[in-house]
Amino acid sequence: MLSIDLNCDMGESFGQYRLGRDEELLDYVSSANIACGFHAGDPATMRRTVQLCLRKGVQIGAHPGLPDLQGFGRRELAITPAEAYELTLYQLGALQAFVRAEGGSLQHVKPHGALYHMAAKRHDLAAAVAAAVVSVGAELTLYGPPGSELLRAGAAAGLRTAGEAFADRTYRADGSLTPRDQPRSLIASAAEAAAQVERLVRQGAVLSVDGEEVPLAAETVCVHGDGAHAVEFARDIRAALAQCGIAVRPLG
Amino acid sequence: MLSIDLNCDMGESFGQYRLGRDEELLDYVSSANIACGFHAGDPATMRRTVQLCLRKGVQIGAHPGLPDLQGFGRRELAITPAEAYELTLYQLGALQAFVRAEGGSLQHVKPHGALYHMAAKRHDLAAAVAAAVVSVGAELTLYGPPGSELLRAGAAAGLRTAGEAFADRTYRADGSLTPRDQPRSLIASAAEAAAQVERLVRQGAVLSVDGEEVPLAAETVCVHGDGAHAVEFARDIRAALAQCGIAVRPLG
Amino acid sequence: MLSIDLNCDMGESFGQYRLGRDEELLDYVSSANIACGFHAGDPATMRRTVQLCLRKGVQIGAHPGLPDLQGFGRRELAITPAEAYELTLYQLGALQAFVRAEGGSLQHVKPHGALYHMAAKRHDLAAAVAAAVVSVGAELTLYGPPGSELLRAGAAAGLRTAGEAFADRTYRADGSLTPRDQPRSLIASAAEAAAQVERLVRQGAVLSVDGEEVPLAAETVCVHGDGAHAVEFARDIRAALAQCGIAVRPLG
Amino acid sequence: MLSIDLNCDMGESFGQYRLGRDEELLDYVSSANIACGFHAGDPATMRRTVQLCLRKGVQIGAHPGLPDLQGFGRRELAITPAEAYELTLYQLGALQAFVRAEGGSLQHVKPHGALYHMAAKRHDLAAAVAAAVVSVGAELTLYGPPGSELLRAGAAAGLRTAGEAFADRTYRADGSLTPRDQPRSLIASAAEAAAQVERLVRQGAVLSVDGEEVPLAAETVCVHGDGAHAVEFARDIRAALAQCGIAVRPLG
Repeated sequence: MLSIDLNCDMGESFGQYRLGRDEELLDYVSSANIACGFHAGDPATMRRTVQLCLRKGVQIGAHPGLPDLQGFGRRELAITPAEAYELTLYQLGALQAFVRAEGGSLQHVKPHGALYHMAAKRHDLAAAVAAAVVSVGAELTLYGPPGSELLRAGAAAGLRTAGEAFADRTYRADGSLTPRDQPRSLIASAAEAAAQVERLVRQGAVLSVDGEEVPLAAETVCVHGDGAHAVEFARDIRAALAQCGIAVRPLG
Repeated sequence: MLSIDLNCDMGESFGQYRLGRDEELLDYVSSANIACGFHAGDPATMRRTVQLCLRKGVQIGAHPGLPDLQGFGRRELAITPAEAYELTLYQLGALQAFVRAEGGSLQHVKPHGALYHMAAKRHDLAAAVAAAVVSVGAELTLYGPPGSELLRAGAAAGLRTAGEAFADRTYRADGSLTPRDQPRSLIASAAEAAAQVERLVRQGAVLSVDGEEVPLAAETVCVHGDGAHAVEFARDIRAALAQCGIAVRPLG
Repeated sequence: MLSIDLNCDMGESFGQYRLGRDEELLDYVSSANIACGFHAGDPATMRRTVQLCLRKGVQIGAHPGLPDLQGFGRRELAITPAEAYELTLYQLGALQAFVRAEGGSLQHVKPHGALYHMAAKRHDLAAAVAAAVVSVGAELTLYGPPGSELLRAGAAAGLRTAGEAFADRTYRADGSLTPRDQPRSLIASAAEAAAQVERLVRQGAVLSVDGEEVPLAAETVCVHGDGAHAVEFARDIRAALAQCGIAVRPLG
Repeated sequence: MLSIDLNCDMGESFGQYRLGRDEELLDYVSSANIACGFHAGDPATMRRTVQLCLRKGVQIGAHPGLPDLQGFGRRELAITPAEAYELTLYQLGALQAFVRAEGGSLQHVKPHGALYHMAAKRHDLAAAVAAAVVSVGAELTLYGPPGSELLRAGAAAGLRTAGEAFADRTYRADGSLTPRDQPRSLIASAAEAAAQVERLVRQGAVLSVDGEEVPLAAETVCVHGDGAHAVEFARDIRAALAQCGIAVRPLG
């Protein structure tokens, strides 16, 4: 049976603040990227989220971000490669302690927000992030944009890598995401999102906003957890995939 | 040959701010308690300090503290036992990632400041800290005040524990430290401090400020790293100990 | 016409995190206590909340808290009186800049969470908070528990003070709040809450959980903004008060 | 008598961490730019530094920075103009509260580090910073690089502006600073630095590293406070200026 990994960012609450319906989403995804306390998350949230993932049988990944809680890790910060290595390693270690304490094991790493985007474009930052992942475990999988510096650096460091597509975003003819400020950048219908995922699985491609088929090497698909209808969207995509014979499973 | 472990708090710089002459101190102590980013320290400092310890052959411990950089972790904060467990585990995991990345291994844990004092007095917080240490490694040694709840909880959790004395502080007849706001609370002379350590090693006791011999079960002795003459003090204590036939060695 | 001030804590969102339905609540209260960035709030939230208050004609107060975003300022922290003065003054100044920039004026100060409780009990902290308020403006009103050290210190410093009662909390025979972990500590019905407020306004008293009339000198009543039905609760209390001839008005 | 304003960044300690010999430097400069708690400084440090300035008769300015204590505000962060306005206003308000509480008045604003550089280059950020300054006081002076967007925006907003030169840095033929990673970017001799300041005062120009005279409209000169010999350097420059008939005085 064909399958795809659905991943979702999780554990992005902080203290009194709640973000995302993690517990419900975990019924529909196969991998969770858990925030590590820099852009979101805190020790209590990390512990609770790890426990939820283990109870629901969802693969655990780390979701390290820039040290910018106020900007939710979405604002680029001019860090050096050494700083990228150090802040990634710090966060991976912190999360791994919770994962092990609960009897699980860390499986993958997906950088968050601006760190993800910066490491996708810049080789030096990508290499630093990959080195931090290797330091924590050479068996970990690194998630990143298909064809990015991040995945290139991961492969060069000997890591397994996984190209990531987005269920609810459209693509341009060059394989890049349609920027959010452009028309038709978002896919609002779960059926349409599932169709995009099906094409990815079967043809290794997406249809661009202009209707062209664009090859895209993605082994994992991100569903967002923070919209008002995120849970229903994830549920409907999973059901639609099941109907066309595609299982949702971690990369294993 | 008789021996004692000399430990020192380290890695307490932050960003642009430098604190302590860590590199020089590492020539004289056998164990380093490395700050983990909450009361002091940051990822870059942690990495650098771990590297220094490995180069100088000094045993590496974690020095987790309360999340209070401005108060340097010295102000009591009303945390719950769950919070104590979580913030300790987070910090231990973060430091352990750096230790492993550099090819070393974490050997002990000594809570910092108000966390140390709160866990020394309160059983529930002590048990939470000990549980976090066990989660990271059942082979780790927990440092704490002799006779404290912290050491009791560590032993109950199956950890090796080590009572800690202070080289430059005097004791009262009940075995407690003379408060800093009292006369003769500090020992300014390295010779006198070394004599106190020698008595600890040979008789398992200290002389109280009132001249009584007080039993004290201490296997490790803290030398402070933050005074103006900290390096010279540590050097002179070590030399004085050598002269009376006591080696400085980690607990191993 | 009789009147009472209804106040509500506001502006407690942070970055990406949203807390409270501030805009709706502002239709029903007469005073807003705006978080100042330490326990909650951030510069963008402060600006937006000040603008909302001015648009809705609600009196603006500052709601300074302890520097503990993760604990939402609810965990006691062992600060000195000097630190209490400094952190209060810092936050008042920051908020006042936004208030003036928008053409308004700061009217009152109500400390938040653990700072409120600590200053209610400890004279030295109360005096420090009051001194910070005076530094910002001798014409400001200080909100606090009736009969507390905080109000005593405010009066001694020459400030106008206002005793604060809670609409949705019950009282004990000694005038203190029934602790939250006790039965019947909360008032769930808006009608009952309005009845408590009416008694406060007409008799200067509340009925204790044991049915005794207890004098309580309260000029302002807090309604909480963070429950699921906070807006409806505030709306219903206001309507019930109107029906029995009590207007909701700031202290002016 | 001719005169020049010597300014220095101050109050950049944080909690336990000490940076700069502020008290001694205040004997030689005429203006202090006080950190406001984001890139450095804390409420206690702000209060102490304001008191020092008032005691020594040094003009007080605000030195707002990016919210990046770990990076000391030196790493560019992709903030929006709205965020630039808000974080500047917050910090100015906080500092102003301390200045007023001590009986002084705020006179100028000089952004710090990456905020200074970003606002020098980008018109939108410059306008946002200038608007925040105007919100706090239309009588304030805005310090910035000569010919920068920051000064242009300040002037457009109706503020008095002051071009800033650096005593210990060399200039290139286009009036820009020689980057720190280039040869001869720093001026190590106080005599040479004083000569550069004298030329600025008398000719409104500097000599470039290539020996050309470059016009530079600077009314204030920054001396750094964080080097090992900062105090001696400031003292010697001041003495050398006095010898050639130039007084050190705030812009007033």
